[in-house]
Amino acid sequence: MDRVKTGIAGLDEMLNGGIPSGRHVALYGGPGAGKTSFCFEFLYQGAKAGEAGLYITLEETTEDILENMKSTFPMFADTQKLVASNKLEIVKPDKLDLEEVANVLEDRITSNGIKRAVIDSATMIRMSFGTEIEYRQTLFEFLSLLRNLDVTSITTVEATTAKREEMKYDIEHFVMDGIINLYNLDREDRRVRALEVFKMRGTDHSRDLVPFKVTPKGFKVYVGEKVF
Amino acid sequence: MDRVKTGIAGLDEMLNGGIPSGRHVALYGGPGAGKTSFCFEFLYQGAKAGEAGLYITLEETTEDILENMKSTFPMFADTQKLVASNKLEIVKPDKLDLEEVANVLEDRITSNGIKRAVIDSATMIRMSFGTEIEYRQTLFEFLSLLRNLDVTSITTVEATTAKREEMKYDIEHFVMDGIINLYNLDREDRRVRALEVFKMRGTDHSRDLVPFKVTPKGFKVYVGEKVF
Amino acid sequence: MDRVKTGIAGLDEMLNGGIPSGRHVALYGGPGAGKTSFCFEFLYQGAKAGEAGLYITLEETTEDILENMKSTFPMFADTQKLVASNKLEIVKPDKLDLEEVANVLEDRITSNGIKRAVIDSATMIRMSFGTEIEYRQTLFEFLSLLRNLDVTSITTVEATTAKREEMKYDIEHFVMDGIINLYNLDREDRRVRALEVFKMRGTDHSRDLVPFKVTPKGFKVYVGEKVF
Amino acid sequence: MDRVKTGIAGLDEMLNGGIPSGRHVALYGGPGAGKTSFCFEFLYQGAKAGEAGLYITLEETTEDILENMKSTFPMFADTQKLVASNKLEIVKPDKLDLEEVANVLEDRITSNGIKRAVIDSATMIRMSFGTEIEYRQTLFEFLSLLRNLDVTSITTVEATTAKREEMKYDIEHFVMDGIINLYNLDREDRRVRALEVFKMRGTDHSRDLVPFKVTPKGFKVYVGEKVF
Amino acid sequence: MDRVKTGIAGLDEMLNGGIPSGRHVALYGGPGAGKTSFCFEFLYQGAKAGEAGLYITLEETTEDILENMKSTFPMFADTQKLVASNKLEIVKPDKLDLEEVANVLEDRITSNGIKRAVIDSATMIRMSFGTEIEYRQTLFEFLSLLRNLDVTSITTVEATTAKREEMKYDIEHFVMDGIINLYNLDREDRRVRALEVFKMRGTDHSRDLVPFKVTPKGFKVYVGEKVF
Amino acid sequence: MDRVKTGIAGLDEMLNGGIPSGRHVALYGGPGAGKTSFCFEFLYQGAKAGEAGLYITLEETTEDILENMKSTFPMFADTQKLVASNKLEIVKPDKLDLEEVANVLEDRITSNGIKRAVIDSATMIRMSFGTEIEYRQTLFEFLSLLRNLDVTSITTVEATTAKREEMKYDIEHFVMDGIINLYNLDREDRRVRALEVFKMRGTDHSRDLVPFKVTPKGFKVYVGEKVF
Repeated sequence: MDRVKTGIAGLDEMLNGGIPSGRHVALYGGPGAGKTSFCFEFLYQGAKAGEAGLYITLEETTEDILENMKSTFPMFADTQKLVASNKLEIVKPDKLDLEEVANVLEDRITSNGIKRAVIDSATMIRMSFGTEIEYRQTLFEFLSLLRNLDVTSITTVEATTAKREEMKYDIEHFVMDGIINLYNLDREDRRVRALEVFKMRGTDHSRDLVPFKVTPKGFKVYVGEKVF
Repeated sequence: MDRVKTGIAGLDEMLNGGIPSGRHVALYGGPGAGKTSFCFEFLYQGAKAGEAGLYITLEETTEDILENMKSTFPMFADTQKLVASNKLEIVKPDKLDLEEVANVLEDRITSNGIKRAVIDSATMIRMSFGTEIEYRQTLFEFLSLLRNLDVTSITTVEATTAKREEMKYDIEHFVMDGIINLYNLDREDRRVRALEVFKMRGTDHSRDLVPFKVTPKGFKVYVGEKVF
Repeated sequence: MDRVKTGIAGLDEMLNGGIPSGRHVALYGGPGAGKTSFCFEFLYQGAKAGEAGLYITLEETTEDILENMKSTFPMFADTQKLVASNKLEIVKPDKLDLEEVANVLEDRITSNGIKRAVIDSATMIRMSFGTEIEYRQTLFEFLSLLRNLDVTSITTVEATTAKREEMKYDIEHFVMDGIINLYNLDREDRRVRALEVFKMRGTDHSRDLVPFKVTPKGFKVYVGEKVF
Repeated sequence: MDRVKTGIAGLDEMLNGGIPSGRHVALYGGPGAGKTSFCFEFLYQGAKAGEAGLYITLEETTEDILENMKSTFPMFADTQKLVASNKLEIVKPDKLDLEEVANVLEDRITSNGIKRAVIDSATMIRMSFGTEIEYRQTLFEFLSLLRNLDVTSITTVEATTAKREEMKYDIEHFVMDGIINLYNLDREDRRVRALEVFKMRGTDHSRDLVPFKVTPKGFKVYVGEKVF
Repeated sequence: MDRVKTGIAGLDEMLNGGIPSGRHVALYGGPGAGKTSFCFEFLYQGAKAGEAGLYITLEETTEDILENMKSTFPMFADTQKLVASNKLEIVKPDKLDLEEVANVLEDRITSNGIKRAVIDSATMIRMSFGTEIEYRQTLFEFLSLLRNLDVTSITTVEATTAKREEMKYDIEHFVMDGIINLYNLDREDRRVRALEVFKMRGTDHSRDLVPFKVTPKGFKVYVGEKVF
Repeated sequence: MDRVKTGIAGLDEMLNGGIPSGRHVALYGGPGAGKTSFCFEFLYQGAKAGEAGLYITLEETTEDILENMKSTFPMFADTQKLVASNKLEIVKPDKLDLEEVANVLEDRITSNGIKRAVIDSATMIRMSFGTEIEYRQTLFEFLSLLRNLDVTSITTVEATTAKREEMKYDIEHFVMDGIINLYNLDREDRRVRALEVFKMRGTDHSRDLVPFKVTPKGFKVYVGEKVF
């Protein structure tokens, strides 16, 4: 099976080599959980390895995203270079609409051979739907369109609670191919960050909850270490 | 009493020989709980034993399902052969509607002597109903139609919470003949998968919670092992 | 005081001899909790002792009920004979309506001297009411009609949660003369079935929670044994 | 201060002599908690001591109430005599309406010198109101009418949960002069009944939770005994 | 800073001398928590010290309030005298409306030099508002009017739950200058009363939870004693 | 990276030097949690260091705010001087509207070189929106406007529960650049105040929960001390 190496230290090991190629993964997390850093690293590592990446932002401007990338990781000193060489694109679609997102994605794949995509965030899309079934069907059709494209994607989803035990399953949990959860767990006197691969179609994977950190050298997952 | 051997290691033992023939079972589980693997195994084991099976998909395309089957189990190398020999059919009805599902099922039983069916999922149907009583009555009538057909079925239902203790009873719990629950339990530092037979009309059954795994050799239930 | 012996091993002891004659009892339980087995046993034991019984089904067909009776208890081998001799009747009213249920009941009492009745289930009736007070008044009037008839009844009610501690009081709790709860309790690695008499107007009763089993020889309550 | 001795063993001690005369008390309890037995005892003890009592029933018929009284307490053998001598009246108002209740009460006080009243139940009244404030104002005006009458009353209120810790304050909690709670507490393997005086305007009172029983000799409160 | 001594034993100590003059405090408590006793004591102690006080009742009649004062505290024997000498006024406004309350207050300050006021209760006002923001703005404007008057006030607010841990913040929590909470805590076998100063603008204060009692000699706060 | 030193003892250390310049931070807290003291200190310390500050109040009047500042901190004796010298401005916009807030802010930056701003509170704004997505988009556009201005801001948000574990993520949690939480934690016999930096884009930061106090000398964060 083809796999896309995320390049995130520790995570590829948990995934037995990487995300199965062509799969579409939801990345869940609360505010400050590290979703953006995870996505940057996924695209950056791809770009360094020669796979062009696209960041589709549905709320923040492209300038904000670029600014954020730079200030988060010193190593992103070469981000500008990656952008200049078209290995890293940031696009804000004109409309807050999944069809528009698919159009942007298809266009950039055709023009620039994009292999990795980040969609930030599904929550912005979902808010604009009246009923659950409408959103589910639209999201499902969107994924069907994506399956015809040769791309592996990560879509961020905003978690609504800090408590891991209280996770309710959302529509994305059932529809997406994979789910990676980022937690900012409450350990009495401090917060501890942890990651788990909750679901990944097409591959076996670790079911452990592991600590992670966002370091100046990037997003690190400490496989084999205990959170508790 | 006639019984349909699921062929799932361990499960038939829990059911004192298998699902009573002609019964209609709900399979509950969250995302990534293993519902699809369970259903594949149920149909695959039937097909290998000469009982033709039908997978009715209400969301994913037939191609997606076939693709998923192949990537999940290496042993499904012979799936193609089973499909070619009509021992395994995958159909997506034209409408998201229980009457249509019953029509498809009846047609395939008449034409191809289907003995086992999977309906994936009741949740897709339920979403389209306005009130509980409407859905309940429709589901009940659907089961009445099914009772006139010589088939044993499994219908997947999406669970809405990861916590076993918080299970609320849904309409399917009362209407269906049997309930098998798949859990992805939160054990502090990791997730543990477990299965229980919650209800099965027409037979006594184990009431234990037992661990299960989806291995390259198929879906295995570890009867006699402890989850906690 | 006149009492109706349920004939269920252990239960009559908990009730100091049986259900006070002419009282109307709600039987609460989740799916697979054993409500149907309890009701069968109540009618079967009555029929064997010469008291004609009536099973009023509001959802399943009379054929389904009869089929279920046979497959649940081997001892029901003589059910057919009881049905043939009019000691056991199963009726499905034309309408889902309490007035209709009362008519059926009155008619069968007049024609066949019915002494015990089962109404399965109140939940089906309740779903068709818009407001709580409407349902309550209708249920109350229904009970008033029943009080003029010489019959002792059990009405099943579907519980909505598996947790005994989370029981909310429903309208039936206040209106009916008695309440018997059947639980399918979560004991970490397995489910344990237990029964309690929660309320019984007109008699003192045990307030213990006791284990029960549905055995091939019938419904058994293990008075004096601990659940925990 | 004038006090009305309830005559219930133990309770008058908890109230430092009885309910302050002319006060209006809410009696909370779930189904089977013992509300009706409590009310019977309150009226019976008054009648025996020469104080005429009135039971205003808003749901059950007067015949039902009388029947219930007899079957609950053997000592009510002399109930009939009390009824015949007008020391105990049971009335069902024509309308489910607080103004009607006040009219009935005033009429019976004038005609028969009623000193103690039971209104069963506030829940029936409340269900017929659309908004909280409407019900509150009506209940308040009703109490104002009652304050002009020389009577001490107990109004039953149906509790909605079995858990003492989850008690939410209802409108009656704030408006009524006193609150007595009856609990049917969940002690793992059985239910234990307990009473507390939660609020009583115009007198100090015990704040202990104490066990109670409904015995053939009446309602007994075991002051000084522990529930846990 | 000017402070208004509440005169309540222990409380002034917790407030470092009293409520900052001209501040408006919310007094939270469930039924029977002691809100009314607290308010009586606040006005009584003021009146004894020469500061005229006004009790604005929005639900009960002025006669009820006076009656309650007398029956609660034997020491209120001299209440009548205080009322006669205009040191203590009880008024029920014609309308349930904050503007009306402000008019009454302003009028009594002008005519009678009122220094302390009690408004009982905000809950009555709140119930008449459709939306949260309307109520909040009206309450805020009301406080603005009050700030132009030379008066220190306590407004009672009805708490909706008995559990201290479950306190949700209400509009009054944010808008009022101070919050004093009265609890009737559930200690297994009995209820224990406790007080805390939750918020007080313009002064530092104790953050301890302390027991209190309503004794025949008045409202006593036991600073330095433990509740648990 | 440019940083704005908050001047709050301990906090700048937790932020590795201060809030990244030009970022917009949400300050969460319940009533009496210390939000206002925190904001005053932030502006006061800026003004003392030569950075002009603006307090935009959306509920209280400018006079109230000034009054509050004086009574909270004795050290604010020189507040008047700071106000006179235009180093500290307090403004109440004419409309409760984010566009109006942005106009005020831009105008004061142009006229008076404002570097630090406080907006008190987002909750007042949010209440006036019908749907979540409308508020989110408006808040987002507002932040976009702010990003064009050379200012660092703190916006207060009212927390709705006292329990840290029950924090639900609000729209502000996702949209704002940083989140600082102030807690008034329930420690059985008293309340303990604690602060955490929950999220801060563009800088690493402490994830500890640390105690804080509002002392006459200002807002102090006790880094390195335990809350539990």
